[in-house]
Formats: sequence, structure tokens, C-alpha cells
Amino acid sequence: MKHKLAILGFGTVGQGICEILRDKEVYLKNKYDFEFDIVAVSDLHFGNVYNPQGLDINELLGKGSQKTPFSTDIKDWDNLSMIKDSNATTILELTYTDLETGGPAMEHCRVALGAGKNIVTSNKGPAALAYPEMKKIADENGAQFLIEGTVCAGTPVINLSDGPLAGCEISKIRGILNGTTNYMLSEMEKGVGYDEVLKIAQDKGYAEADPTGDVEGHDAQGKVTILANIVMGASLKVSDIPCKGITEIKSEDMDNARNNNKRWKLIGSVENNNGEVKGSVSPEMIDLSHPLAGVMGATNALTFTTDLLGDVTIVGPGAGKIETGFSILTDLLRINRS
Amino acid sequence: MKHKLAILGFGTVGQGICEILRDKEVYLKNKYDFEFDIVAVSDLHFGNVYNPQGLDINELLGKGSQKTPFSTDIKDWDNLSMIKDSNATTILELTYTDLETGGPAMEHCRVALGAGKNIVTSNKGPAALAYPEMKKIADENGAQFLIEGTVCAGTPVINLSDGPLAGCEISKIRGILNGTTNYMLSEMEKGVGYDEVLKIAQDKGYAEADPTGDVEGHDAQGKVTILANIVMGASLKVSDIPCKGITEIKSEDMDNARNNNKRWKLIGSVENNNGEVKGSVSPEMIDLSHPLAGVMGATNALTFTTDLLGDVTIVGPGAGKIETGFSILTDLLRINRS
Repeated sequence: MKHKLAILGFGTVGQGICEILRDKEVYLKNKYDFEFDIVAVSDLHFGNVYNPQGLDINELLGKGSQKTPFSTDIKDWDNLSMIKDSNATTILELTYTDLETGGPAMEHCRVALGAGKNIVTSNKGPAALAYPEMKKIADENGAQFLIEGTVCAGTPVINLSDGPLAGCEISKIRGILNGTTNYMLSEMEKGVGYDEVLKIAQDKGYAEADPTGDVEGHDAQGKVTILANIVMGASLKVSDIPCKGITEIKSEDMDNARNNNKRWKLIGSVENNNGEVKGSVSPEMIDLSHPLAGVMGATNALTFTTDLLGDVTIVGPGAGKIETGFSILTDLLRINRS
Repeated sequence: MKHKLAILGFGTVGQGICEILRDKEVYLKNKYDFEFDIVAVSDLHFGNVYNPQGLDINELLGKGSQKTPFSTDIKDWDNLSMIKDSNATTILELTYTDLETGGPAMEHCRVALGAGKNIVTSNKGPAALAYPEMKKIADENGAQFLIEGTVCAGTPVINLSDGPLAGCEISKIRGILNGTTNYMLSEMEKGVGYDEVLKIAQDKGYAEADPTGDVEGHDAQGKVTILANIVMGASLKVSDIPCKGITEIKSEDMDNARNNNKRWKLIGSVENNNGEVKGSVSPEMIDLSHPLAGVMGATNALTFTTDLLGDVTIVGPGAGKIETGFSILTDLLRINRS
């Protein structure tokens, strides 16, 4: 099947999925009968390009790596025109995440799904703030709203829960959802203080200049909301999730954990008690024998508690250009199968 | 969709899947539009029963728990008649595993697949000894040969690799594939000797009276063969996999591991080097920081090394009536989706 793709937002993830599609073009055709044209790219910095027959992917990536704007003669098209008036059948919504308002991604998703075009996204905004609404528009218009990349990059979490774990009822999900804070806690265990660790994390590119979203737990809070709404069918808002970050953890707390064979982790949690779904984000001392305790550095992990299998834990990358790019590919292959 | 099921072998797994199907009948219909009739059961101890309209599942389970034979008037039907002449569309092959010859399960699978009937199985025999042959017969006759339960009970391994991990190329799989030996190694770390630990494992029902299959690594060897052939497309025989068990591990070895921040694990491994696939089973000292090191007791775990995601590890149960029963359900739902 041939897919006509439009990419909104040509940053790390947008360029990551383009690299994967370029490098795996033959493999994907032979193994999965998956073919594609990238017909449109729209980006604040690079500008907009459109060719209904497909753009040259190497040329796009060349501009991306050189940070030079596209040559374009369709400057008057905005993102919404690109969605509505291009011949794209699937929109990759990869603009910046805004967990307060959802940003322009909200309208991108509404317009695309309303026009019967699939959305594949790693943008947490629409998924965390409006999953039930987006799913409804998608269902009414025969489109799909696929969001594997919003939680744990491409590590299969959502597609695990409703693929291979289908048939199990999931009563609890607990996990390490933010790689930045997990890296920081791993380093703090070695005796490095919070401020110094934060600076190292910023130097390495794990933490942003304003680290609030990570260290105060808001990033994990958005992901917990997504898991509650998509895996447990809840209708929670981000503000329904009590949230505490790692900023108050002192070296005494680290010693205390070590002396008790435990380890600090920032745990995102969702629990379904007879249909009442509650979530939270908070640092916890985890017993060293628990599978989550061994997850160090920028890695993510989630434990699903199920009725038929007991606990099933998945551990994998939580960030990265290609790792998050894969989350887009996995959802494209899901569309290709259906 | 309504599935007509025949069960060959009414032991732990056969009774487990029946319990799940009975308890989840309404849930499965509502959530997945999955309906079923168990039309035939055939077992060495219980005898054979057949009703094209469906048997009473509670009556079957009652006989199972009381270990009393079925009342039957079709004593002249053998398993092959049951497969060919019943109206079953999917055969659950749950007879005993024989890793030497494959046992009668080989012919059950050949005949069912040849007649265009799906096989769902947790029996390692046909999968380890003849996966390429079985897959070929299945493909030629429009049937499916599904074997999630042959590795790590119902913990998604095979359905993870060709579902949510599709698009990744898997170059290496390493894991803890045998719960009995992992339990024994976990106990030996506490200072208990091999012979004593083996006796405890036998008392708990983890190890059989003749523990050779587990402690010499043959069970893991069969699973490595299956992973090599199904995930990496190889055509290896069980005898192609060098295999060493845990019988030679002494308390000095345990001390040595502890002093080096490591831990002994019986590791099954498959590696694909440019199309040349090799497997092995051997005890290894694993660094405590590796996700597999934290997997204790009768739990199983597998790490997939992929091109796009790096390492992805899944941890879950490796045995159990309901846990292995779920492996059958997950494959039935896969048939239901396709």
C-alpha cells in the first residue's frame, strides 16, 4: 500500500523518521508492502514545500542538516491548507509540545482527523489534553489517531498494551517515564549533588535550559494522563494527576535508600480500581529486587499489572532522534496493516 | 467472528485456556468481537469428546479438576480423526513436549495445517524441530501456525517482535528463558547448595522429578532454536545450538560473581551476523547494572538488540496455568484480527 505523508514540524523527530524511511525504503516495501511519498513538509524555520508526486527525501534532509530553509513557491500555504488541500492521507504531527494549551497541534489534529486523514504523532499536547475528543473525531471520520511516540519514544508501550497484551485487563501501570530525571537520579546515587547533576544533564543535552518540565515532573504527568486515557479508557485531565518532581531529593535521601537496599526513581503511576482511574507522579524508593530498580540512565520502563500475566515490564529508550522516529514508523506500519 | 476450537491435550495449559475463555466470554465478545465454541477435546487420560455445536465448558473443567474421564461415545476417533473430521477451524495443540522427535504433535500439526486449519500451540516440539516446514504447510493452505506460548509462556515475545517491533531489524536476542534454573540460581545466591536448591525446586513443582531438561539447558536450547527460526528466519536444528546447563556452578562461582558486582544467569542467545545466525545456551556472569540481572525467581526476560531502538527488554512470567493459557488466547485474538 502506498502512503502519502505530510510532515508538520521538521525538527529532530521529523528528520529522524525521514532518515529511517530513506534508509529502509526497500526493506519496508519487500517485508511489509509499505510504500510512501512524502508530499509535504511544513516547518516554522524551513518553510513549506509540497509536491503531490512526492518530494526528494535527500534534498529535505540536506536542508535539515544544513539548517537552510527550503526553496519554495507556496509561501501562502499555512499548515491548515497543507493538511486540507494537499493529497496527503496521513499527517505526521511533529510540532513542539505545549502541555498547557496544546499549541497549534490541537487544530492540526482536529482538521486532519475531521477530513478523514490519519494523524501519527509524538506530540504529547493533543494526546494528553484531548485524547477522547481526538479519538471521537477520528472514529467518526474513518481516520486513525496514533500516538505511540508520546510515551517512551519508540519503545512499544501503547501498541504493546493493545496488541500483544490484548485480552488481559490492565489494572495498574507504573514506570519510569522521564529519561532526564532518571539520568539525574542515577548520577546523584554516585554522590554528585542535584545542582551539579543538573548542569551535566544540560551539557549533555538531556535537560533543557529551563528544566522545569522534566525536574518538576510535568513531562511525566502528561504521559501518565495519556496512559490513563488510552490504556484505561479514562477521561482525565493533566491537572487531575498529582505531581511531584525530584527537586527536593537530598543526598541524605540517597543514603537512606542505599542503606535500605532501595533506590530513588521518579515513578509515574496509573491505577484502575473498579473503573475509578487515578494517576500520580512522585519520587519513590524502589526495592532493588524490582525490575524498575535496575533501569538506569536515560532509559524508560513500564510495568503493566494484568489479570492473566501478572506483571509484565518493558524497558527501552525514552528519547533520541531515531528511537522517536521509529515510533512514527511503527504507527505507519499499523495503518499499513489495517 | 466465531471460532470453532478443538483442544488436543487437556492438561494444565488446556484447562488454563478453558478457564480464561469461560471467565472472559462476555468481555472478549464485547471488546474484540471474539466468539467461540469448544467443539472437541482429546486427551490420553480423559478420552475424547466432540459436539459440533460446542461442548459445555464447565462440564469439561469439572472433569478436569476431578481428574475423571469424559463420558464419551466416540471412542473410535483418534486425534487425527478429531482434527480432520470435526468442524474445528483452529486446533489448540497442547500435548506433551518431546524435543527429541516432536512426538505425536508433529503429525497433529502437519495434518491440521494441511487441511487449512490453524494451529495454536505452546508445545515446543514442532516449533523447535520443524518451524520452517510447518510455516510452509500453513502458508500453502491458508492457515496460521502460531506459537507465542512456546517461549516465556504468555509474556509477549514472538508477537512483540513481529507486531510492535516490526520495522526494526533484530540482530541479537539474549535472555532468561528457563524459570526453573533462574529460580535455582536466585536461591543459590543466598548460599544454598545446588542439591538442596534442586530438591526445593522439585518440592515447589518448578523442577520435574527428572530435572535434566531444565538444568542441562535443553529447554532453553529448544526455545533458542525457535527464536532463531521464527524471529531471524534461520533454519537451525536444536543440535546446532551449543548448550551448557547450570549443574557445574559451585558456591565459589557464586562468590566470585558477587565480588565482581555480577550475577549468574543461564543465558539463551541468538545472534545474526550478516545473515549467519548462531545460537547458544550457557551460564554467564551478568553485570548487576544490566536489565537481565534484576530478573529473579521463576521470571523470564528477553533483550532484543535492534537497529532503530537499541536494546528493548521484556520481563514477565515464564510458566503457570493461566499465564501459559493466555499465550493461547493472544494467538486466538491474532487469528480473530486477521
